[in-house]
Amino acid sequence: MKDLKTLIVLAHPEYEDSNTQQFLIASTKNLKDVSIRYLDEEKIDKREEKELLKEADRIIFQFPMYWYSAPFLLKRWLDEVFDDSLIVNGLKNKELGLVVTMGLSQEDFAAGRSEKFTLSEIFRPFEALANKCQMTYLPIFPVALFPYLSEVNKKKILIDYQMYLTKQNETNFKNKEDWFVSRLESLKEKSTNQESINHVLESLKDNRETLDDLLVLVKEMRLEDE
Amino acid sequence: MKDLKTLIVLAHPEYEDSNTQQFLIASTKNLKDVSIRYLDEEKIDKREEKELLKEADRIIFQFPMYWYSAPFLLKRWLDEVFDDSLIVNGLKNKELGLVVTMGLSQEDFAAGRSEKFTLSEIFRPFEALANKCQMTYLPIFPVALFPYLSEVNKKKILIDYQMYLTKQNETNFKNKEDWFVSRLESLKEKSTNQESINHVLESLKDNRETLDDLLVLVKEMRLEDE
Repeated sequence: MKDLKTLIVLAHPEYEDSNTQQFLIASTKNLKDVSIRYLDEEKIDKREEKELLKEADRIIFQFPMYWYSAPFLLKRWLDEVFDDSLIVNGLKNKELGLVVTMGLSQEDFAAGRSEKFTLSEIFRPFEALANKCQMTYLPIFPVALFPYLSEVNKKKILIDYQMYLTKQNETNFKNKEDWFVSRLESLKEKSTNQESINHVLESLKDNRETLDDLLVLVKEMRLEDE
Repeated sequence: MKDLKTLIVLAHPEYEDSNTQQFLIASTKNLKDVSIRYLDEEKIDKREEKELLKEADRIIFQFPMYWYSAPFLLKRWLDEVFDDSLIVNGLKNKELGLVVTMGLSQEDFAAGRSEKFTLSEIFRPFEALANKCQMTYLPIFPVALFPYLSEVNKKKILIDYQMYLTKQNETNFKNKEDWFVSRLESLKEKSTNQESINHVLESLKDNRETLDDLLVLVKEMRLEDE
């Protein structure tokens, strides 16, 4: 499986002071092939930005929701960098994902609730952009009310976020398990606790064998039914 | 009927060089109670902007579509000016409209067509903003492929645009006619051709009387049916 290169385009006017952004940024440190482009108000070198985009397989726009969209820094960057060459084939078959932090519960985004529209509806402009560039649009990754979450839930988000950045875009179980195995193996190299990591890897392997047996069984039962 | 005050917030990085914008701007010159705030990259005085918003009954965001949204100038202005006080009651019961110029046909914005989504879907973030501020969201006013239109169609857009800016938000025929009468009367004051304007006014008045008679007749018929 080819390694996936991920570029995070981060648009937060004060990301240094945002605990949520700092937590997310910190959790990318151990991930190889993930890089971050921090947007600011400086002059944009279009050529350099296009080079970054060219190298990435998965492009993530990460930002706090301001007035039902990204902060203007991201729009400024889009207005300056995007052009016909990116539309025609510069981004073809790459993936576009959104990591959106917000100060409201995700449940508020629905018909009949305070925000009236779902996140899918609100971020339609990005879906339209992905469509135009022939990119694969990933499910939105919302991070709601992060400062109020328990430590356990924060850790859960950390794992999901790392998967969102680096996992191959297939939702089957085998793929999710593969991701855990490769993460564990990369941790093992640096860890002082190799034994317990090996233990987890072994039980994942056992599970996999049981699962494979079950899959064969199901297949046989289906054949008998025909 | 109270006069409607309209504020156009114009976000086009090069509106001086845009024939479409110049045409639209020129057609507002004769309209009293319509003012334009030209956005640029200068520092924003939040207090002044909120004062402008406070005075307006109808607020129009006018811009070319860039990447399925407004140019970053508008987002920057929103990010700087909007706050809780505007949400809670600063804009309550005011109207929000969008005048969107674009280089594609409106037909391209539909499921199964090149842009995949309708304009209503693409501009959902503005509808969500209007909802949040308890404003009335007006139908979008798209200006598609303006430079390629015939002179007749450009004039038609001019009239529709002037209505969009100044007409009371009721779609019945009487209201539309009232708008024409008041525009004609305001033109008459400055015109050298008062006679022909009077002639048009007279025939509108005759039509109105015929229409009123018809309405009475329809009402009577309905009563008889009951």
